[in-house]
Amino acid sequence: MIYFDHNATAPVMREAREAWLNATEHIAGNPSSPHQFGAAANKAMTEAREKLAAFLGCRPAEIIWTSGATEANNMALHHFAQVLDPKAQIWISPIEHPCIMESSSAYFHHRTKFIPVTHAGVIDLDWLTVEMADIRPGLVAVMAANNETGVIQPWREILAICQQYEVPFFCDAVQWIGKMPAKGLGECNFLSGAAHKFGGPRGVGFLKVPGRGHVTPLIVGGKQERGQRAGTENVPIIVSMLAGLEAREKQLARNEHILRGVWRENFERQLLHKLPGAVLVGAGSPRLWNTVSALVPEGSQLRWVSRLDQAGIAVSTGSACTTGKEEPSHVLAAMHFKAADAHRVLRFSSGWETTEADWAALADALGKIHEEMSHTRAHAEA
Amino acid sequence: MIYFDHNATAPVMREAREAWLNATEHIAGNPSSPHQFGAAANKAMTEAREKLAAFLGCRPAEIIWTSGATEANNMALHHFAQVLDPKAQIWISPIEHPCIMESSSAYFHHRTKFIPVTHAGVIDLDWLTVEMADIRPGLVAVMAANNETGVIQPWREILAICQQYEVPFFCDAVQWIGKMPAKGLGECNFLSGAAHKFGGPRGVGFLKVPGRGHVTPLIVGGKQERGQRAGTENVPIIVSMLAGLEAREKQLARNEHILRGVWRENFERQLLHKLPGAVLVGAGSPRLWNTVSALVPEGSQLRWVSRLDQAGIAVSTGSACTTGKEEPSHVLAAMHFKAADAHRVLRFSSGWETTEADWAALADALGKIHEEMSHTRAHAEA
Repeated sequence: MIYFDHNATAPVMREAREAWLNATEHIAGNPSSPHQFGAAANKAMTEAREKLAAFLGCRPAEIIWTSGATEANNMALHHFAQVLDPKAQIWISPIEHPCIMESSSAYFHHRTKFIPVTHAGVIDLDWLTVEMADIRPGLVAVMAANNETGVIQPWREILAICQQYEVPFFCDAVQWIGKMPAKGLGECNFLSGAAHKFGGPRGVGFLKVPGRGHVTPLIVGGKQERGQRAGTENVPIIVSMLAGLEAREKQLARNEHILRGVWRENFERQLLHKLPGAVLVGAGSPRLWNTVSALVPEGSQLRWVSRLDQAGIAVSTGSACTTGKEEPSHVLAAMHFKAADAHRVLRFSSGWETTEADWAALADALGKIHEEMSHTRAHAEA
Repeated sequence: MIYFDHNATAPVMREAREAWLNATEHIAGNPSSPHQFGAAANKAMTEAREKLAAFLGCRPAEIIWTSGATEANNMALHHFAQVLDPKAQIWISPIEHPCIMESSSAYFHHRTKFIPVTHAGVIDLDWLTVEMADIRPGLVAVMAANNETGVIQPWREILAICQQYEVPFFCDAVQWIGKMPAKGLGECNFLSGAAHKFGGPRGVGFLKVPGRGHVTPLIVGGKQERGQRAGTENVPIIVSMLAGLEAREKQLARNEHILRGVWRENFERQLLHKLPGAVLVGAGSPRLWNTVSALVPEGSQLRWVSRLDQAGIAVSTGSACTTGKEEPSHVLAAMHFKAADAHRVLRFSSGWETTEADWAALADALGKIHEEMSHTRAHAEA
């Protein structure tokens, strides 16, 4: 099987597995415990916190470990619901992950304004500049890179605008971290990430918060994380996440992602050649090196997924977190795609272990399925 | 080092480590994904759910995976805060884990009534019977076994009383599961557990909920767990938890805990012999085979912990989740211990891998430290 669904979850990388194994064997304690085992666990967790802070460019004390990005994102919105003026608006992009969309709806119902998005899948910076000069929202939340399309959002520019008007900026960087250099992300006031999208272990993420002040906990009942997130910290999985991220940042420092971006572009050319009528989603925008979102020319998306699955290639129709829903993708809707078109979308998300040959095999399989479908249709019409 | 702090966290057992390793290697998908990898992950998760349900005696659909018991307990209280009448009271024991105490306080401030506890550390069943005949609370929450004292609570009897009056019963079984047979716990309307206290991996727990009806999610933004808990399910860690629990249930079926209970009793006799003036907490009550809570005759508890640590034995002063707090244990306060006495408490919590020799070494070390302390005091007084 060839795996093209890394944006849903990625296989656990060797470095992360070994670190988890080692930690479960040698770091047995609870970091809150008052003995050597506790101290060793606390030391390992502190080192991981320092490493992550160094990658992001923030202070270690600004990092709160969570069970994943979904929890971190819920926690951020829950916090703002407690501290913002009851009339304050929040502005979010309409292409956020469902956990941001639903938390916003739960905590800021009728007080959420959506930042317009272009057909190419990028938020409208001009709109933001103009509107912000007029009104100050209580929070701006825009992701770093979209999970369905791979389109990169101008988070540095959004941050600069927010800083100018002293509006807190919250960036969900789940799809960015471990695929693009993390440097600078730590300047965002709030920031979330998770390990399992880049090959780290599942079950761990973080919320970076501003150093001053206390974040309202979503989960209470223990003094962990300076009273901001109760529950025994999962030291082996935290250590495993950082071992994975360190390896990824090394690959990024060697620019290994640049070559992979070229593979993706070659694939896109092949795709458009083999599937006349196919449309690349977000084609005009900078996109992650790993993700291709495309409208196939014919047939239902689930039929394509199933045919590719039979051919030994795993792809998806979009976010795994929305699979099962009948509605078309909210991301494509925000990009002004018609519902009928949105039902033709496939997502191919590669990983660090994906080879150029894997991309070629995917293109070949797509071409063959297209030919079969055309043939079947021609027969049916004859 | 000898580890006597399993109630804080236990070393990960071989079966759980191997299952995690195997799952991270062979079950790479996201259970929500529409391809073979997704299907394999979903199958593994379904099997784990069926196994856990069989151990507990409930239906698989009644189990919601969480990041741990702290989240599960927060989730249960959050749910009742949404669905109960705004004037409804909840009744909880005053010896619950801090995450139940604090969630109750957050969601049911001024509406929480505490069920009295005897000096032996058991909730007062007579009180419950009499009061319940008079008033029906919206919820009764009592843990299965206490984390600080090991005292077993009469959860079967509480459940029966609650059933009689149709009051939902919520049982935090974190310290019970994997140490005592889980059978029957699934009859509680709500039930929480975690893996890392019995030697399973950290970062996974569950909330068992009633089959009919929908539980209000604490963490939103995905259709996972039938819309009751958003976030990619951590399949490797879920599989690892069940591999661990299966091994523990086998040991329990062979009555391996009975012998360990004898070791604990032998240690208690040694302790009282070597430390004249020491007091066993909850001595008159049925207690978990692994836990001893004792008031030492002299010296601060932290000094004892530190001396034992130097002697190569890790023990604690009580719950790791409350370490760092200056206040005396709320559990001992509820058991009518004076604050000064509560400051003399040490907790020794063994695990499945603890040997009879480990208990003997602990008794010897305690005796030696006591002798040294007496000697030092005699010198100072001379």
